Amino acid sequence: MKIALDVMGGDYAPREILLGAVQAKRALDVELILVGQRAAIEQELADIEAADSLGLPEFEIVDAPDVIHFDQNPSSVKERRGASIRVICDLVRQGHADACLTMGHTGAGIVASLITFGRLGNVLRPCVGIPYFGLQPNTLLVDAGAMVDCKPEYLAQFAQMGSIYVEKIWGIARPTVGLMTNGREDNKGNELTRTTFALLKNSELNFIGNLEGYDLPNGTANVVVMDGLWGNVALKLTEGLSEQLLGRIAKRFSDAGVAHAVQNILDEFHAMMDYARIGAIPVFGVDGLMLIGHGRSRAAAVVGGIKSTMQAVQVDLLNSLRQGLTDQLPEGA
Amino acid sequence: MKIALDVMGGDYAPREILLGAVQAKRALDVELILVGQRAAIEQELADIEAADSLGLPEFEIVDAPDVIHFDQNPSSVKERRGASIRVICDLVRQGHADACLTMGHTGAGIVASLITFGRLGNVLRPCVGIPYFGLQPNTLLVDAGAMVDCKPEYLAQFAQMGSIYVEKIWGIARPTVGLMTNGREDNKGNELTRTTFALLKNSELNFIGNLEGYDLPNGTANVVVMDGLWGNVALKLTEGLSEQLLGRIAKRFSDAGVAHAVQNILDEFHAMMDYARIGAIPVFGVDGLMLIGHGRSRAAAVVGGIKSTMQAVQVDLLNSLRQGLTDQLPEGA
Repeated sequence: MKIALDVMGGDYAPREILLGAVQAKRALDVELILVGQRAAIEQELADIEAADSLGLPEFEIVDAPDVIHFDQNPSSVKERRGASIRVICDLVRQGHADACLTMGHTGAGIVASLITFGRLGNVLRPCVGIPYFGLQPNTLLVDAGAMVDCKPEYLAQFAQMGSIYVEKIWGIARPTVGLMTNGREDNKGNELTRTTFALLKNSELNFIGNLEGYDLPNGTANVVVMDGLWGNVALKLTEGLSEQLLGRIAKRFSDAGVAHAVQNILDEFHAMMDYARIGAIPVFGVDGLMLIGHGRSRAAAVVGGIKSTMQAVQVDLLNSLRQGLTDQLPEGA
Repeated sequence: MKIALDVMGGDYAPREILLGAVQAKRALDVELILVGQRAAIEQELADIEAADSLGLPEFEIVDAPDVIHFDQNPSSVKERRGASIRVICDLVRQGHADACLTMGHTGAGIVASLITFGRLGNVLRPCVGIPYFGLQPNTLLVDAGAMVDCKPEYLAQFAQMGSIYVEKIWGIARPTVGLMTNGREDNKGNELTRTTFALLKNSELNFIGNLEGYDLPNGTANVVVMDGLWGNVALKLTEGLSEQLLGRIAKRFSDAGVAHAVQNILDEFHAMMDYARIGAIPVFGVDGLMLIGHGRSRAAAVVGGIKSTMQAVQVDLLNSLRQGLTDQLPEGA
């Protein structure tokens, strides 16, 4: 199995991405193609080798002179064919790699995969799904930020793709699907969610109805459907709130001089709420396998991302999505 | 000062509402008009008196034969003139009370206040604002659930009303205002938020730009503007997540046999995240003072709600809103 890895994407690129690649290559049965600025990669690898007594494994390196940074407009990727996030997609399309992985700009990754692979089957818009941290690892939030202006048909397809992912990757048969609104009753929500409700109700999905804010941390459904703007807000709110609460509690405990054991428990909770442990998640709805990891990934999270990518290849996720998406959803409500 | 109190609204009505009224009457300089089913009120008061050695204070009772329950459609309040949540508004309109207070159905309260008082000045739609718990008591989230289908002009007015409230009630001069989207950059957001951004940018408000999910728990702005559907989701997500985290941590600590002091600290945090301590919040944008408290309010929270209501009367909030709302906002972007 061959994976094209964007070495330039992520807050700690290229160093931590390369450290992750070295660890993964030693532990896993996978070929890695390192994509990025060749001179920078070779320099970093030499530095890593100098500090590493084991000797470095072999890597193929593919030069990509350009890098998309987090503050740049994702659509600029269209003109920047030499950007590493584009080149990893090209390697997949050319059949040189089975899948690609970046820890870089999510929006740019979605645009790059969409223009390189095209849409999958009858998909209207791509999206991304993210597990609700370690708190509810069996709950996938979709869309997690790809599409900020959604139509009911998009949301219904997001639900379907999320469902297939949860079934294939997490091994949960007939995953439950819920729609985020302002209350559990069928008539809750706004125009967008009420029409989506009708589409989901008429679909073959295991739709359990409207959800409300409590249901995300409570893990009420396996697939929680929201538009990408509010999916993004919900995830960042969760990160920010848990950080605030755990930080304040830790501070109070240290004031109170409570034992070391307390700190260990809080550290565990911090780790549970850590985004980077999720590994990487595929872009749903494009005709090729691209996975995106958290921008703050360090080496261990990069290894996790490589494992996620390998799994997506092993279960042939792309084919499952393609087959599952053939006209299950009715045209209207 | 006279306040009309809906004795029938709330999860613990009428008992806890009446207990709160008794406590408030003893501690505060206020007249309370108890509104609800007279027989039920008299029976409950007799029971309370029998268990109370101090003797009950005097109350005026106004009979309202009907009650709106939480699972009922808020617009049904239009036909139900005898509902307690309608009668408290009537008492204000007739000049018999300075303000009214309910712990009942928020949606029904908004509809009742709107049809009784009418809109305030040039307000397009009413809304409600809620402080972001004890975690960030100087951050008001608006709209917290009144309007689920919003237009940019509504959101801009919500920002304005929230700003006036924070200035008048919390005493913060020139409160900062932020717009919730999926990132800090000016071009982030969806169609609705991008147009709202332009309106706020051109307003006289102290607008600090787009916010993202982290900013709510971090208290980045005094007034955080979102549409009511997602304001509701954000608040319930916050409640549910803090409940989950604190509950799990408490459980782990009790497993680990850590000292009683730890539980006290966690209890403090539970209290900090408790909705009911907020008191009550006014409906913004109607031409009369109605305040709404949390449905789960017990006696102490009812007392808090009565204090909030008294404060709104004392600072003449309605008049501040009326004056502040006169055409500050430009017509378009």
